[in-house]
Amino acid sequence: MQTQKIKIKDMPNNQDSPLDMLSDLLDQDMKQVNSLILKNMQSDVALIPQLAQYLIMAGGKRIRPLLTLASTAIFEGPMDKSYHLAAAVEFIHTATLLHDDVVDESNERRGQQAANLIFGNQASVLVGDFLFSKSFQMMVESGSLEILGILSNASAIIAQGEVLQLSTTNDIETSFPAYIKVIESKTAALFAASCEVGAVLSNRPASECEAMRKYGTNLGNAFQIIDDTLDYIADQETLGKDIGDDFKEGKMTAPVIFALQDAGKEEKLFWQRTLGDKKQSNQDFGTAMSYIEKHEAIEKSIDLAKQYAGSAKEELMNLPNGKYKSLLCDISDYVLSRNF
Amino acid sequence: MQTQKIKIKDMPNNQDSPLDMLSDLLDQDMKQVNSLILKNMQSDVALIPQLAQYLIMAGGKRIRPLLTLASTAIFEGPMDKSYHLAAAVEFIHTATLLHDDVVDESNERRGQQAANLIFGNQASVLVGDFLFSKSFQMMVESGSLEILGILSNASAIIAQGEVLQLSTTNDIETSFPAYIKVIESKTAALFAASCEVGAVLSNRPASECEAMRKYGTNLGNAFQIIDDTLDYIADQETLGKDIGDDFKEGKMTAPVIFALQDAGKEEKLFWQRTLGDKKQSNQDFGTAMSYIEKHEAIEKSIDLAKQYAGSAKEELMNLPNGKYKSLLCDISDYVLSRNF
Repeated sequence: MQTQKIKIKDMPNNQDSPLDMLSDLLDQDMKQVNSLILKNMQSDVALIPQLAQYLIMAGGKRIRPLLTLASTAIFEGPMDKSYHLAAAVEFIHTATLLHDDVVDESNERRGQQAANLIFGNQASVLVGDFLFSKSFQMMVESGSLEILGILSNASAIIAQGEVLQLSTTNDIETSFPAYIKVIESKTAALFAASCEVGAVLSNRPASECEAMRKYGTNLGNAFQIIDDTLDYIADQETLGKDIGDDFKEGKMTAPVIFALQDAGKEEKLFWQRTLGDKKQSNQDFGTAMSYIEKHEAIEKSIDLAKQYAGSAKEELMNLPNGKYKSLLCDISDYVLSRNF
Repeated sequence: MQTQKIKIKDMPNNQDSPLDMLSDLLDQDMKQVNSLILKNMQSDVALIPQLAQYLIMAGGKRIRPLLTLASTAIFEGPMDKSYHLAAAVEFIHTATLLHDDVVDESNERRGQQAANLIFGNQASVLVGDFLFSKSFQMMVESGSLEILGILSNASAIIAQGEVLQLSTTNDIETSFPAYIKVIESKTAALFAASCEVGAVLSNRPASECEAMRKYGTNLGNAFQIIDDTLDYIADQETLGKDIGDDFKEGKMTAPVIFALQDAGKEEKLFWQRTLGDKKQSNQDFGTAMSYIEKHEAIEKSIDLAKQYAGSAKEELMNLPNGKYKSLLCDISDYVLSRNF
């Protein structure tokens, strides 16, 4: 599929990414966060650290805890207090991944077999609950009720987003606003909270906390739209999880919704059969791709992500200048090219 | 099975139970708690209130929120502040029920079909997460970091207990201490926290908070041992869930562990086949019951529960006298006869 390769080539080069640069800059702080993560996944119930370690140590770029640290550093806030929050944010994220994989019956995650396949669905549900509880214990240590409010609110929104996604799955009538609501809830809410808590911890005025929150929301939306797009165009090695998973499950994401907007009668019948009624044969993914290409749905999805990335950048305008602001700015471009 | 009927008849009559009396006494307060419960299960994602309502409105005796209210009332503490905590405690409990039913593949709960069978495992996992997040939002409204610490710690312990239970299931070598650790974690930890937060909210000295916590732990242990015993001797109508579920799943609970303690070689082979290797035929539950009766394992289980109930009562000794203390005292006897 020539088109796909062109798309990926068109995107910026990923070497020395701003996320890596941020990671280097905050290296000492991330070490503290990692040791908190390790400490808090301990339990004398052996299966808990085994499973938690399997997923957490598999990596990922730790973008959420990095955002929390950067959002504290940009205001020269109390870094030591941000460690617990950064670890808490990563625990919330990991807990939702564990539950997601049970819900989605995933096969692969972060380039390795999904935890539920190795440890079982039961353990994935319960260890998710454990990590989630632990995240709240770590937040309590931050000593701020306001921050606890922000993160517990984000957690509730994430769960709502996941349930909403269940309701929209296999429904080819899913509207664009409904899709945006899903991604804003299931993904952007935690990005937003990760950013906002840094500003709150630094005792910044409401307008700046709000700006950081909105930066996170827009960044998260861009991130998720690209994620959903990669599910159609990436190669498996890059993605670190199954390709075409969303298609197989009948998830209504940007590429499909764009393709459906201009679909003729026959195409609609195709989407109804494959996504709505989940009756798929081997050639269907190829046909889906041809419809997606015909309607330039990949380009439209990337454009939409670009708009969110642009809005994210704008929110940073009135925040203190410096290396952190500059990197956060670059990260909003970087998510558009993400292959992590 | 004649023996079973005798057991249940031997227990005290359940009319005008102390739990009902406590419920009547705290009727106005429970109305506030119920309206908070209703309010907080709302969401514009329709499936969430549908599923939450299905389970929460099916009833149960609300023993945990009642304990929180009573533990505040006994010290003449701030009742209005206890409403959020009582609702939070019920949400944590409901979330764990939802996840439990997914993990256990249960068929029945509170006398009706288990939620996961009607709404699906996916929705049960996610709505559980939602209720769990909401419980933390409600705790934040209590304004006390200490209380948040107590309840988030309890949540982490519950999850650990559930994972530990997974590890002991189908392991007929499970020791009594391991069993007690499971029930103390998965059940008693929330009873303990429900009681402790009332004392903490009322600004009582550490010794009294500790006494309330220990009352809750012992009550919870007694409650769970009786629950595990009823799984062998109750009739389905009374229990409101499947009978013999624990046997079918190979859960290592008090009646089986007592029966195994004095089991001969042949019996051990029977338990290994049925619980260890999960190879069961229709007559096996009857055989299991005959071994359990032979070793008086039901009587021993009830005796053990009685010891915990007695310890619960002792913890109340130095607390302020009055109707609440008296009812909490009676409740520790009542759990021994529970058919709720």
